Amino acid sequence: MFNVSHYKFGRFFDATYGSLTALEAEQSFPFGVKRVYYIYEVPDGTRRGFHSHKDLHQMLICVHGSVKILTKTPYEEEITELSSPDKGLYIGPMVWREMYDFTPGSVLLVLASEHYNVNDYIRDYKEYEKIATDFLKSEVK
Amino acid sequence: MFNVSHYKFGRFFDATYGSLTALEAEQSFPFGVKRVYYIYEVPDGTRRGFHSHKDLHQMLICVHGSVKILTKTPYEEEITELSSPDKGLYIGPMVWREMYDFTPGSVLLVLASEHYNVNDYIRDYKEYEKIATDFLKSEVK
Repeated sequence: MFNVSHYKFGRFFDATYGSLTALEAEQSFPFGVKRVYYIYEVPDGTRRGFHSHKDLHQMLICVHGSVKILTKTPYEEEITELSSPDKGLYIGPMVWREMYDFTPGSVLLVLASEHYNVNDYIRDYKEYEKIATDFLKSEVK
Repeated sequence: MFNVSHYKFGRFFDATYGSLTALEAEQSFPFGVKRVYYIYEVPDGTRRGFHSHKDLHQMLICVHGSVKILTKTPYEEEITELSSPDKGLYIGPMVWREMYDFTPGSVLLVLASEHYNVNDYIRDYKEYEKIATDFLKSEVK
């Protein structure tokens, strides 16, 4: 769907040493990393997210456990289950997202293209719908 | 010790939504992030690392479970237990490191200042000892 894509990363696996996945900024995915955050200790049944960004590019990776991600525009929606440290979900600008079904102990790692900027968030779905509809009209010819 | 320091990061905690720790590159720690990697599914009893970098800056965070890190120069050594997602261990250039006591399911996240460069590694301890002794003589006056 628009501004959402799925990545399968490499994994250096060794029976003695374990697994390692390495991501090179601007090479493994098409943006630089200015912010890294991770979500953890999420209580059972929690649904979070409920926002879109105006300009931010993000890569979501569930490095432990699993989580489901709903991505949505006024025209389409998709559900992605992140259940392996070598799977990535890229979410670009103007996509609504909700995260849910965090398994106990799950850790969702997010790499973001910009530093935190409160003005880049759209947190009201009605407002998002209006802005995104206008945006996607000009974007998708 | 030389080129090793301990960080305590913030944590946005909410009883409903869970915890989130956010790291701003070049602000939360003094380098930009060009590479992100994570080590996982490490078998019980494994000890890994056994190298130094010549120029790389790294931040190590155990985002799930716990792990111990030995950092060492020819003149001093230290053991750090990373057991919480809000603890970080900075390791700069010319420090030998070994990682061990990975708990089952633990995930060690590493943020690195440069892309992968095979020539930046020193993997032989005797060679490291020699280079580091010369390096630290000029560094520590």
